[in-house]
Formats: sequence, C-alpha cells, structure tokens
Amino acid sequence: MENYVFGRNNVIELLQNSNRTVSKIIIADGSQNNSKVNLIIQLAKQNGILFQILPKEKFTKFNSYSHQGVIAYVSPVKFVDLYEFLNIDKNNKKVIILDGIEDPHNVGSIIRSAVCAGFDAVIFPSRRNAVINSTVEKSSAGAVNRLDLIMVNSLAATIDKLKDNNFWIIATDIHSKDNYYDIDYCNMNFAIIMGSENSGVSATLLKKSDFRIKIPMLADFNSLNVANAAAVVIFESVKQTLQNRKDVV
Amino acid sequence: MENYVFGRNNVIELLQNSNRTVSKIIIADGSQNNSKVNLIIQLAKQNGILFQILPKEKFTKFNSYSHQGVIAYVSPVKFVDLYEFLNIDKNNKKVIILDGIEDPHNVGSIIRSAVCAGFDAVIFPSRRNAVINSTVEKSSAGAVNRLDLIMVNSLAATIDKLKDNNFWIIATDIHSKDNYYDIDYCNMNFAIIMGSENSGVSATLLKKSDFRIKIPMLADFNSLNVANAAAVVIFESVKQTLQNRKDVV
Repeated sequence: MENYVFGRNNVIELLQNSNRTVSKIIIADGSQNNSKVNLIIQLAKQNGILFQILPKEKFTKFNSYSHQGVIAYVSPVKFVDLYEFLNIDKNNKKVIILDGIEDPHNVGSIIRSAVCAGFDAVIFPSRRNAVINSTVEKSSAGAVNRLDLIMVNSLAATIDKLKDNNFWIIATDIHSKDNYYDIDYCNMNFAIIMGSENSGVSATLLKKSDFRIKIPMLADFNSLNVANAAAVVIFESVKQTLQNRKDVV
Repeated sequence: MENYVFGRNNVIELLQNSNRTVSKIIIADGSQNNSKVNLIIQLAKQNGILFQILPKEKFTKFNSYSHQGVIAYVSPVKFVDLYEFLNIDKNNKKVIILDGIEDPHNVGSIIRSAVCAGFDAVIFPSRRNAVINSTVEKSSAGAVNRLDLIMVNSLAATIDKLKDNNFWIIATDIHSKDNYYDIDYCNMNFAIIMGSENSGVSATLLKKSDFRIKIPMLADFNSLNVANAAAVVIFESVKQTLQNRKDVV
C-alpha cells in the first residue's frame, strides 16, 4: 500500500524529523508563495526529493483529508520490535498500551500526547485495534515518527514480558477505587493501558495490572473520550516528573 | 435545517436526559433484538415518539456518520442566553470559552469533558468557530444536552461581562510562565479560554485574562491537540475540587 502524509505542517515535520523515505511530494499550483509551502520546496531540494507542482484538480480524490495542497508519498511508518525496545539502555521508560482503540483519530491523538509528554513507545495489538494509517498519522500531527511504535500479536504476553523487564503496569478502569493522581509515576518504568471506546481495558489485562486507576468525574455522565482520558493521565505523570525534579534541586 | 442524532448510546442519552423535541426515530430492520435498540423502542413508546423500522438501504446516505442503525430527528440544540446564565443563583460556576475552534470533533469532545467535570456552560462565538451540528453532537456523546450552550457575538464583550459578574478568566497560552497546576481553581467562578487549533487564544482575549497558563511538555514537539489540552486543564480543576472537599472533611 502506498502511504501518504497530508498537510503542510505534517510534511514539514516529516522532512525535518523523520527517517522515513519520501518518494515524492505533490504541491497544488498557486500555493508556492505560502511560506510553509516554500519551506517544503526548499527542504525537498536540499534532500534531493522529487516534487511536482500539479493543478488543484489532481487533489480532488484526496479532499476528504485536509491536505492543504501538499501531499507526500512515503514509506510506511517504521515499527520497532518489542525486544529491541526492551534492550535500549534507559531508565524510567514510559509506554502507552492501546487495547483495542478503534477510532484512528483517537489513536493518532494519543500518540501525539505521548510524544509531547516524552513517552518512549506506544504498543498496540495486530488485531482489534485501528491500524497505523494516514488518518492516524494526520491526527498525530506527525508524532508517529517521534517515538517507537510496537505492534504485537498478544498484549497479554507483552505485559508479562514488560513485567519481567521491571515495568509497572497501570490500567485505566472506571470501576477502580484509586484515582489517577493517587499513584507515583516517578523513578520507574511504567506502561499505561488505555481500553477500547466501548468496553475499556479487557479483563485479562486488568488482572495482570499492578495498578488500576480511574479519572473521577463530577457529573453522572458516561465517560471521557479515550484520547482525552489518556491526556489527563499522561500529563499527571509529566507534572509529577517536573515537580519531582524541582524537589531534587 | 433538520437535525439528527446518530448512534444507539446518543439516542438513549437524548431520550433519557434532554428536553429537546424528538420528531421521529428511524431504526434499521434487523437490529430490534439488540438490547440498546430495544431500550430505544421502549423509550419511544413511553414518550409517544414516532419510530419506524426501515430497511438498511435507507441509511446509506448517512453512512459517513456512525449511526449503528439508529437515527433520531430532533429539534436543534437549545442555546441559553448569557444574561440568563449569569442570573442563575449558584456558587463556583465553571465555564469553557471556545475561541475559534474549527474542528467539530474537538468542539464536541471538549463539551463532553466539560460535562464529565461538572462544568456549567460552554461559550462560543457566532463566527470563526465550528457551529453546533450533528458531528459536534456525536463527538460530545450527547453531552450538548447536559450543560448551557451560549452563543455570543463578541467574546471580548462577554469576558468583560463575566468579569463584572465575579468570574476569573484563565487563558491557555503556550508562551505563559505559569503552569496549569500552579493556580487554584477552588471556591471561585472561573472561565477557561481554549484557543484555535492554529493560532491559540487571540491577543485581545489574552490581554483581558487574569491568568495565563500553559501545559508544560517533556519533548520539543509542537503541542497537544486542543481537546486533549482542554481535558488536562479541566481535570486539574476537578482534582483540586475533590482534594479540597477532602481537606474540609
């Protein structure tokens, strides 16, 4: 399958910060004077990447994506092997595990939050989860190139392997007693499991977790969108990390 | 314009918790045995609402929405007048102000987070902001019916009015010094301004704000998705409220 990256900021991010192969960039005629498009043309020239100025009509079939007149043809997102990731010598690794998230916008948006928060990897199962496609890439604002994406056959086996490698496993679960801010995210390797939009984290994975946390609500309403819930938990860990650093100083 | 509510959970939420007029519900033939669809049929009967079982083909034109074979025809979302809202006798009112959020998924998702967090209202401008449509309603998981939606002509004038009525104004701004967790959200009326996806909160509104806050990042990456950023700030206020209550006890 051919892969695309849509939109000016995403293509700039791709050209500046990813190691993926760009085979071609197409640019809508008339947009060359825009400063971002200009930067894209410069970067393409510097990197010896083919670019074509095409009439706007050529972009019609991509109009369901917000391409802003810029589309890059790229090699697929690179996946990292779980063992390779575990072998990287680093303290306090931080990981998100996606347990059956179906909406690619949610997947992309969670990857974006994870990158902003300095997380190291996102792990997702090869089945029953959105695949990493152009929509995920666009929703991630290009963040898919900034951390390790790890696709696994069994999340249960992966969690066992993470535990063997000194990871603490934190599952989000609306039925849990503990709140997300009651646990300490500092000075440890941890993985946060986010569950599917409809049924949450699966029972098998909940059982394997060291902590179960919920986000307490102030109204009797169903629940947060999963990407928003992920952001809340992820940034609690960032806050603790920053406050912890201050304590040391 | 005819308004629609798509999807099983959303229609249940509509029938159970909103005061909007439902003129008709259409249900795809073959789904009657599903427990949620069954509940919808029961609720429709109880409330004397017309429902029709139609062949699946009739739903084709709505297939870009995830309707799950259930669509309700409804009166438009009800807006509340700003003065009416200000006259409600209540302490510690909590409001979100949307300053030019363009993506209806983001608008819906922010409304959902606000409802979960017990916020009272979402204020948005009549221009340069996504309108409240079916996509917003769907992304909000029906939350649009659970708080006051206030549409205003001028956000600047609205903020002046809020300040006259004892509201503290908090603007999110990636250039600010203070972090979102450095301010105290308890025991006051406050409004949090979320800025547009591309340019953030406008300069005029920043100037009028009492506090400017940022969400600190741990990586050199652009920024969070605006709905995720809203969730992080909104739930910091929830956490403080809950911890404050505990302190009192």
